[in-house]
Amino acid sequence: MRATVLHGPRDIRLETVPDPEIRRPTDALVRVEAACVCGSDLWPYRGIAATDGPTRIGHELVGTVEEVGAGVRSVKPGDFVIAPFAISDNTCVHCRHGVHTSCENGAWWGSQDREGLPVDGGQGEWVRVPLADGTLVRTPERPDADMIPGLLTLADVMGTGHHAALAAGVGPGSTVAVVGDGAVGLCGVLAAKRLGAERIVAMSRHAPRQAIAREFGATDVIAERGKEGVAILKEALGGIGADAVLECVGTKDSMAQAIASARPGGRVGYVGVPHGGPELPVPKLFSRNIGVGGGVAPVRAYLEELLEDVLERRIDPGRVFDLELPLAEVAEAYAAMDERRTVKPLLRP
Amino acid sequence: MRATVLHGPRDIRLETVPDPEIRRPTDALVRVEAACVCGSDLWPYRGIAATDGPTRIGHELVGTVEEVGAGVRSVKPGDFVIAPFAISDNTCVHCRHGVHTSCENGAWWGSQDREGLPVDGGQGEWVRVPLADGTLVRTPERPDADMIPGLLTLADVMGTGHHAALAAGVGPGSTVAVVGDGAVGLCGVLAAKRLGAERIVAMSRHAPRQAIAREFGATDVIAERGKEGVAILKEALGGIGADAVLECVGTKDSMAQAIASARPGGRVGYVGVPHGGPELPVPKLFSRNIGVGGGVAPVRAYLEELLEDVLERRIDPGRVFDLELPLAEVAEAYAAMDERRTVKPLLRP
Repeated sequence: MRATVLHGPRDIRLETVPDPEIRRPTDALVRVEAACVCGSDLWPYRGIAATDGPTRIGHELVGTVEEVGAGVRSVKPGDFVIAPFAISDNTCVHCRHGVHTSCENGAWWGSQDREGLPVDGGQGEWVRVPLADGTLVRTPERPDADMIPGLLTLADVMGTGHHAALAAGVGPGSTVAVVGDGAVGLCGVLAAKRLGAERIVAMSRHAPRQAIAREFGATDVIAERGKEGVAILKEALGGIGADAVLECVGTKDSMAQAIASARPGGRVGYVGVPHGGPELPVPKLFSRNIGVGGGVAPVRAYLEELLEDVLERRIDPGRVFDLELPLAEVAEAYAAMDERRTVKPLLRP
Repeated sequence: MRATVLHGPRDIRLETVPDPEIRRPTDALVRVEAACVCGSDLWPYRGIAATDGPTRIGHELVGTVEEVGAGVRSVKPGDFVIAPFAISDNTCVHCRHGVHTSCENGAWWGSQDREGLPVDGGQGEWVRVPLADGTLVRTPERPDADMIPGLLTLADVMGTGHHAALAAGVGPGSTVAVVGDGAVGLCGVLAAKRLGAERIVAMSRHAPRQAIAREFGATDVIAERGKEGVAILKEALGGIGADAVLECVGTKDSMAQAIASARPGGRVGYVGVPHGGPELPVPKLFSRNIGVGGGVAPVRAYLEELLEDVLERRIDPGRVFDLELPLAEVAEAYAAMDERRTVKPLLRP
């Protein structure tokens, strides 16, 4: 089969690799129907996160189950499934607490499992899915083609935006600021709207992203950053700042922007993978009672709930995909993402 | 009148100072009946927090209203009142959000108000209370003498422990770890118990404090610290750590201990005044989804609720006072606190 392999900074290729096989009774083989490139894929692509030799990559996919191991109970060949970005058994103590990204038996796409078996990357034609019963979520029936982008967001960005909103304490009537206008930030807007926020301020200076933010429920858009952005935000929100701030970037600057945007007693929910040493300034947080929560999003915990809303067409997070390419053009998908020519590219194997 | 003045590191004296007077229509004059020394008073006492010349000190007091300004409505001469450690109007937008420590018109005992008028310290015979309607909470009738220590804790440590517990998300069935066995940590144990926690682990290696912790509801006591303490704690709590951790010290080490004690997806509520640069390690928090909240506790927001429990004798936080001295011996109270000979000393003017 063909799969995406990262060879070094900005050197990414679709290559022929061995076909996956069932290796354990808990495995499933899935034929990938749609995958995509994530903001976090850019860290190794840009060489900021080091990789050790050629690396399989990609962690968001939907597709059809083609074969299952003898122990798999919850999915069968022919099922359409969503595979979240973390592999989990959905039964261990951390999964039961809803923290599937800390699963005692978990693994990551493009990496190795706990016993050293390689795990496929998601940007390929096929994947072996370890712990299939825990990891995969099937749809009741084969979805309409136009629904596939929305379902694909449930593998990561929509669940991640939802996690940011929960971690920030968004609820009915909340005032919300969203820092970051990538796919996660935009999904954060949608998640905040879904949770009943009254005011949602998207911090964005790119017209196409501003438009999606408005469509997803943003009541205000602020293009300014830094102190100027904070001043405009506070003025918009009763002079005090937001009850809840979603930090969806992961840099020192974006975290500082998020903290400064919260009102005293407010909360920052952060899901941007931390880069650039954003250690949190405790004295600033302490004096204003700003809470900070979040982390690597346990999207598996939210999948059934969000899936229902997508299938019922109550939300359409698939709007974040503004570029669609065949998997053969994966290098162009990365370049477009890297150069911010696209919010998020969808890949069809 | 006589009041406590800090002159320099470990140089604290009871001195004659001008009698306070009503300076504004919103003021009240209160005759102090009990005050106390706080762990945070030790920072300037030890010279770790710099002071600029002789400084009035103390921020916890209960007493009787003797005179009120023309605009005061909620208290009258003869009322027994509790004065929380932050002065607030109880009406501004931040107070309405329950964040009285960020009051737009607030001030701190021993400091100056927004217009430069000096504000008395609490360790004296009298205080002028600015914003008396917002700041003071009266008891329905004059309390029994044995209840005064418990009422005095509502000025700070009991409300602060409660804030830590809320910020850590303690609720019915929670597993809780409390880092710090000072008065705030002990009150944190009591607050966690009151909120329905199922397991409460007090981290303490001092027998008298361990005993109070047990009395307040601790189900376990762990004397070990650092990695050993974390290992024992995890073993006690299902192998994973605590749902909620109360950080009641404020040093880099105690914050690290608290973060390491939380299970994935758990929360740390911190109320120890930060010293020693405990910047929060974002990557560690991110990978395990540990949330951190809290800050300078808005005890005024909790006062009525906790007061009822004290008056009904459902809780007895006054047990944290294990030393009582006349105000004239304030220097000995500080020395005893500094040398950890007492959990918390109560002063009678």
